[in-house]
Amino acid sequence: MSAFEELAAHQRETEALGNISGLLGWDQEVMMPRGAGDQRAEEMAAIESVLHARRTDPRIEDWLVRAEAKDAAQARMLDLVARSYNRSTRIPARLATELARLTSLSQGIWAQARADEDASAFLPTLDEVVRLKREEAACVSDGDLYDALLDDYEPGAKAKELGAMFDRMRAPLVALRDRVLGSEVSPQPLDMVFPENAQLRLARICASAFGYDWTRGRLDMSVHPFSSGGGDDARITTRISESEPFGNIYSTIHETGHATYEQAIDPAYRFTPLGHGVSMGVHESQSRICENQLGRSAPFTGWLYTRMIEAFGDLGLDGPEAFHALVNRVEMGFIRTESDELNYNLHIMLRFDLERDLIAGKLEVADLEEAWNTRFKHDFGVSVTKPSQGFLQDVHWSLGLFGYFPTYALGNVYAGSLDKAMRKAEPDIDAGLAKGDASVAKGWLDQNLRQFGGLRPPRDTIEHACGFAPDEKPLLDYLSRKFEAIYRL
Amino acid sequence: MSAFEELAAHQRETEALGNISGLLGWDQEVMMPRGAGDQRAEEMAAIESVLHARRTDPRIEDWLVRAEAKDAAQARMLDLVARSYNRSTRIPARLATELARLTSLSQGIWAQARADEDASAFLPTLDEVVRLKREEAACVSDGDLYDALLDDYEPGAKAKELGAMFDRMRAPLVALRDRVLGSEVSPQPLDMVFPENAQLRLARICASAFGYDWTRGRLDMSVHPFSSGGGDDARITTRISESEPFGNIYSTIHETGHATYEQAIDPAYRFTPLGHGVSMGVHESQSRICENQLGRSAPFTGWLYTRMIEAFGDLGLDGPEAFHALVNRVEMGFIRTESDELNYNLHIMLRFDLERDLIAGKLEVADLEEAWNTRFKHDFGVSVTKPSQGFLQDVHWSLGLFGYFPTYALGNVYAGSLDKAMRKAEPDIDAGLAKGDASVAKGWLDQNLRQFGGLRPPRDTIEHACGFAPDEKPLLDYLSRKFEAIYRL
Repeated sequence: MSAFEELAAHQRETEALGNISGLLGWDQEVMMPRGAGDQRAEEMAAIESVLHARRTDPRIEDWLVRAEAKDAAQARMLDLVARSYNRSTRIPARLATELARLTSLSQGIWAQARADEDASAFLPTLDEVVRLKREEAACVSDGDLYDALLDDYEPGAKAKELGAMFDRMRAPLVALRDRVLGSEVSPQPLDMVFPENAQLRLARICASAFGYDWTRGRLDMSVHPFSSGGGDDARITTRISESEPFGNIYSTIHETGHATYEQAIDPAYRFTPLGHGVSMGVHESQSRICENQLGRSAPFTGWLYTRMIEAFGDLGLDGPEAFHALVNRVEMGFIRTESDELNYNLHIMLRFDLERDLIAGKLEVADLEEAWNTRFKHDFGVSVTKPSQGFLQDVHWSLGLFGYFPTYALGNVYAGSLDKAMRKAEPDIDAGLAKGDASVAKGWLDQNLRQFGGLRPPRDTIEHACGFAPDEKPLLDYLSRKFEAIYRL
Repeated sequence: MSAFEELAAHQRETEALGNISGLLGWDQEVMMPRGAGDQRAEEMAAIESVLHARRTDPRIEDWLVRAEAKDAAQARMLDLVARSYNRSTRIPARLATELARLTSLSQGIWAQARADEDASAFLPTLDEVVRLKREEAACVSDGDLYDALLDDYEPGAKAKELGAMFDRMRAPLVALRDRVLGSEVSPQPLDMVFPENAQLRLARICASAFGYDWTRGRLDMSVHPFSSGGGDDARITTRISESEPFGNIYSTIHETGHATYEQAIDPAYRFTPLGHGVSMGVHESQSRICENQLGRSAPFTGWLYTRMIEAFGDLGLDGPEAFHALVNRVEMGFIRTESDELNYNLHIMLRFDLERDLIAGKLEVADLEEAWNTRFKHDFGVSVTKPSQGFLQDVHWSLGLFGYFPTYALGNVYAGSLDKAMRKAEPDIDAGLAKGDASVAKGWLDQNLRQFGGLRPPRDTIEHACGFAPDEKPLLDYLSRKFEAIYRL
């Protein structure tokens, strides 16, 4: 075997073990009995320890020196293996194992604290998570600690540049939001019961509308919706509230966007570093474009309006336009995942600033709740009254995912650029959406972006698909156009 | 660290990875999307390759030489690690990986062939499985190939001795069965529909009656009921037919017996070789005693009769005695898992003889279906008309589990001996069972057998619990007593 082939064979098994680690995570949130937390933490630690040993196998350095790439895909594979090797060799096995064990346990502690509205039950654990993540960041980088963590989710991104982009977005978003909230149009939530079974059926219909391949995935329930796995086993979850139907529907479409990205990657890349979505930001562009630019468009909501009436009976609305306005309702709310397209990015900016301060050591975990609540009051004008509406709402920090949140807003920006390019290339998208069929959009995304998996770096992936360099402008234009129309501004 | 401590730390991680492999197996049968088979096979092969490397780690030999056990438990741990090391070092990594990949795929091929009644679609795969298992047997033993495989499931057992015991059992079982079938008592199956949801609720009630700890397990559906995992995560499955309620109920109780064994093992043994049920035969004794000696007893079925009426309405029976007779109905049937306590062991003897011939090379896979059908006609007097009623009915061979079937009959023998000892020690068992409460029996089993896990070899485990050496006589006595009463012989 050539050095490249030896490396590829080693990597193939590592990728398979990485899949297994992902499946353990899925099982933990969806299936695992609640008494199994400690045992699972030990199992997660064991597989993480094996993965760490494989990613830091000294033979990799030798293979990388000797391997010759025959094409761009092989060259990129070598780049990605080298990147993983360099990061992993800098993290001691002891730290990797400790982090795996802790973040497996801390997730359960977070879920319990959130259910009990008991922030203090989670703080010591979070403090430990922050300490270990700072230690990890210091291991992998001599520069900015936060950038070192961010780079794990969005290779090549820098907090300074993201911060500058967020600064450019903040004023137009706030201005548009304030105009919207001053408008006379004021859609009101539906005051009905939406039975769980009917919601679950509708979730399946929506996932199918966006081309989810059920033979290579499944839909379950979890506390926090997520997608998991890839290739022939890309699973999604949702959560259902019987008083509010849109959380379930749009979570499902969102996760379907993630999963259909994974399902569309060239099977030739399976079990290689090219066989996954290339970054969190690009992944989020795929979920967001499905959820918002497509799923909250007037044509799709027109179709959905009919499906809702079929599922739940008369909604008491004036028609599809009123339904479209309701689905795009802007209001001051506490929960990121339930927020509208304008407030969403402001939610992210809040988290981005707080977690940068946590990692920089400028903010203590003990002061986090107060810092969150103060900032929230400033940015959103309302006071957080319980932790589940505040800093305990999201699972991410319990898992040690610092540097992950900004990729959500970056995904929105990418989705804005992709939508602009896609609609120019495919004028028939809306006609399909009006029939609950997103296949034209899916076809364009598969063809121009998804199939390539990790072939190109994140920004290049978007630029290749769009034909131009992505920035925030198409997103802001889309938001102005959409909300000015709905709110008659 | 001492050599013992180093070995224990290594083993701890191996055990955790073994748990993960078990969870992958569970997921594959219960949750995995059907299109993910090939991908899962590669994942299974990867974890198996890691496990094989750990079990054959050359440091183990050195640790074993230097390690000093401080007590009987540590001495037994060393024995079990040495046993695993000796077996595993004799199996080449190439063969272990090939077997893992093949048996992961072959399970799906079996399931499809069974559903399609298409034996020929499974034969080439089974032929390959047999070939690899013979190769494995030849690696681990210089003696009898079948004994080498049997030893993996029932350490210390010999096919010759089991065969002799089966020979002693055959005549009394056949004689008793023939007397029963000649009796005037002839319970008839219930001709009703038993809705799936109500059956699932009843399955949960039955698992609870036998002390299943739901915080450390879960119940799902699968093609073939099984139990999986252990410690704080011992899962069970069942299958439901709406025309026949007892398959579900007694599968659930059976799997609950397995799972409550695992749940009761001393937590101090967690992540050591003592932390599992000690053998398949002993495991089966725990499932069978719950299913039969306890679950099919008159007191328990009296309680169950009332629960059935609550769940499904009037059953059209004359009362609890008629229900008890129905639950213990003896008839000529094709399916092992649905068979009565008399025919069950005869089903096993058939498989035992056929698989011994397959492994000995005396029977070709191409001739298996005919051999099965001929033997079945001889032993049971009826002709198999489709493979799903014949040699395709069980999952075992597709998984390469040759040498596994006889442990089922051995488990019945062990259950007979345990029941004799238990009822002598605990006269109040029936009073509890009549109220749907098996806790006195569970307490005795936990105290005298289950808590010890792998501390003693299989036969010693049973003998320690019983206070006498187990043999087939208590089982045969119990069967005569029970069926003579029910069938008024």
